[in-house]
Amino acid sequence: MIQVTAQTLGGHIGQEVTLDGWVHRVRAMGNFAFLLVRDGRGVVQTVLEDPRLVEGLNLESAVRVTGRVVGEPRSSSGAELRVTSIEALSPALEPPPFDLNKKALEVKLDAILDHRSLSLRHPKERAVFRIEGELVECFRSYLRGQGFTEIFTSKIVAAGTEGGANLFPIEYMGTRAYLAQSPQFYKQMMIGVFGRVFEVGHVYRAEPHYTSRHINEYLSLDLEMGFIESEEDVMRMEMGFLATLMGRLEETCAEEIALLGARIPAPQAELPQITLAEAKEVLRQRFGKELSEEDDLDPESERLLCQHSAEKLGSEFLFVTRYPISVRPMYAMPDRERPGATKSFDLLFRGMEVTTGGQRIHEHAMLVASIKNRGLDPEDFAFYLEPFKHGMPPHGGLAIGAERLTSKLLDLENIRQAALFPRDIKRLTP
Amino acid sequence: MIQVTAQTLGGHIGQEVTLDGWVHRVRAMGNFAFLLVRDGRGVVQTVLEDPRLVEGLNLESAVRVTGRVVGEPRSSSGAELRVTSIEALSPALEPPPFDLNKKALEVKLDAILDHRSLSLRHPKERAVFRIEGELVECFRSYLRGQGFTEIFTSKIVAAGTEGGANLFPIEYMGTRAYLAQSPQFYKQMMIGVFGRVFEVGHVYRAEPHYTSRHINEYLSLDLEMGFIESEEDVMRMEMGFLATLMGRLEETCAEEIALLGARIPAPQAELPQITLAEAKEVLRQRFGKELSEEDDLDPESERLLCQHSAEKLGSEFLFVTRYPISVRPMYAMPDRERPGATKSFDLLFRGMEVTTGGQRIHEHAMLVASIKNRGLDPEDFAFYLEPFKHGMPPHGGLAIGAERLTSKLLDLENIRQAALFPRDIKRLTP
Repeated sequence: MIQVTAQTLGGHIGQEVTLDGWVHRVRAMGNFAFLLVRDGRGVVQTVLEDPRLVEGLNLESAVRVTGRVVGEPRSSSGAELRVTSIEALSPALEPPPFDLNKKALEVKLDAILDHRSLSLRHPKERAVFRIEGELVECFRSYLRGQGFTEIFTSKIVAAGTEGGANLFPIEYMGTRAYLAQSPQFYKQMMIGVFGRVFEVGHVYRAEPHYTSRHINEYLSLDLEMGFIESEEDVMRMEMGFLATLMGRLEETCAEEIALLGARIPAPQAELPQITLAEAKEVLRQRFGKELSEEDDLDPESERLLCQHSAEKLGSEFLFVTRYPISVRPMYAMPDRERPGATKSFDLLFRGMEVTTGGQRIHEHAMLVASIKNRGLDPEDFAFYLEPFKHGMPPHGGLAIGAERLTSKLLDLENIRQAALFPRDIKRLTP
Repeated sequence: MIQVTAQTLGGHIGQEVTLDGWVHRVRAMGNFAFLLVRDGRGVVQTVLEDPRLVEGLNLESAVRVTGRVVGEPRSSSGAELRVTSIEALSPALEPPPFDLNKKALEVKLDAILDHRSLSLRHPKERAVFRIEGELVECFRSYLRGQGFTEIFTSKIVAAGTEGGANLFPIEYMGTRAYLAQSPQFYKQMMIGVFGRVFEVGHVYRAEPHYTSRHINEYLSLDLEMGFIESEEDVMRMEMGFLATLMGRLEETCAEEIALLGARIPAPQAELPQITLAEAKEVLRQRFGKELSEEDDLDPESERLLCQHSAEKLGSEFLFVTRYPISVRPMYAMPDRERPGATKSFDLLFRGMEVTTGGQRIHEHAMLVASIKNRGLDPEDFAFYLEPFKHGMPPHGGLAIGAERLTSKLLDLENIRQAALFPRDIKRLTP
């Protein structure tokens, strides 16, 4: 017997097939019945000429249905299934806590997260993660094509990368360790080995506040590349990735995008960029908002600048460049031509920072001086500093927050909607 | 100017090119000099007609060399570079702590791990991770092709999956949490959502012993699949992955395999399997080793069984099946036809267990009873149990230890050689 899925059904018109899935909706019509079967990616419309077949079949029961595929132009797959038998593989014991077959899940976010294994059965909820999975896969495949090597670095570290704030302590077999805030040191150390590296992995920030923009464990898409001329090379790599991603999502996730009503930006070969100083000038002149020279951008500024970019610069993405040394980490490369500035950038998208990156310091003496300037002790960074004595080429990189980019691509209100099992100050389960 | 790499050099004979990399070896010959340049994946032979170009050029300095590519049959790429200029991008300040350009790194494992960012510059050391990266990528691409969805689940959990031993505690914003031992509960919970899922991520075991087979943070390749007939479906999925992997490695990592002198097994469509009881009979009859009925296999038994499989069953891989309930977790599906046994398996390879898997219990009442039978409280597993009330289909899965499989494929003596930054009872840095 041919096994089909919601995706492949349309290719089997006229054939006897079986389909595995869950009872998504049942409608008895007197002398026949409609049954919607949800499988791992879609929903299949089936018709039962014998309505007794659906008797006692609870919503969400796991079933195996057998029947003949017939053409049906009103169905999205162009086909429906005329069912001859239904096998109940695993009956549902009670109704789900909310309606999974309505157009949207009309439930508060906390309930959605409390019952994650059930809320994700809603086609719209799970569509988010199908798209996020494609986003991550595109990041990896694009970079592999550009000569990057994938690495997996430890998330248990002896000290923080930026000096120590916001770390989660671990009891590590009689000593104390921490969860890694980023793979920053490790990806730089691997430049001397592979030249270009990337990593996809969770990172941890013990920020004790609850906002719609932060979670305490997030998926970081990291890359680092050697032999660059400047941070512009890193920005170009990100532009290449994003243009590829937008094209790919329209191809591989068309159904999910339509279901969510998401507006995926058209691929752009170039994204606009302005310096942080110029950005502050825009904020002052256009929006009457004053930021001092040393201020970083606050969430409202990020929203206003994205509005400006969409309206005046033709892109929902905006690179902001040349952040001052004071707001960047000790490894940020100073800009020789502009004292006080670094060769760094953020990428804003639809009102939120989704990437931080830049060129790094590659000279040992300059890096040691920068560490000391922050009041830190170079001895504490011994293993990180080691490769810098052995021909570290000019290099730079970036980190993209996967949940942030996904939630903005899909216009989700809260970053938690783009994390399968989010962790925050209030939530450790499920 | 054309930018080449060690991989692409051979395609540019007759052209002027530049190559970025590190000074791997220098040999001045009087009126000319040889210079080996190592880039992110290979080593390029270059010839300098003006030996003054290499004066003062320390080993491991980062350089950009420019020259003309000429055919050279004795070179592995079929070409060498006649250098006209060398730009020192970042000079090495001191010699590396060991010879990086000898055939092998003749240094103790501790020194290799202490200086990881330098030891990995040795072509043999880094070849391990190029192969491991391909292995991981093959796992993902094979499963995507089989309709699996990639998931990313939290590594911070409120309780352990198996009841509580060997957990690393985390101070989580005023409360206590733990590092995840496996994504077991989460991948099962996602069966009802996506039908088939996989995850690649670090997992954590606070095992306080030091052996060549264990590290405390390892990369787990997890899959879970719904609507199975039995654990045989899961084993078939692993056989399909392994056969694809062996073919792919020979294609994409031929250089690295040759460099390491690794023996990659020929792809096999079917791998042999024996029950645990049969395995114990083999141990007794052939090797004079007695194990009781309830014993699990010890490392020596795994070695002897693999010897038996290679010699008598025609494979370096061996599935061992039907482990007793007493040595398997509470979610293992009992075998109705063989009281006391579970529908589970391990996969042994070259003397070591590299996979554990099996069918899982999918009936809510059976799972609750199994939890109670272990002296555990079902209330502590509330979020895990929830989807089992809502049509959980028959399902099963497995977990492959990426470092174990890699180290056995490459005949490495210690699993730490297959972890970029291993963590164990003695090591938290680099």
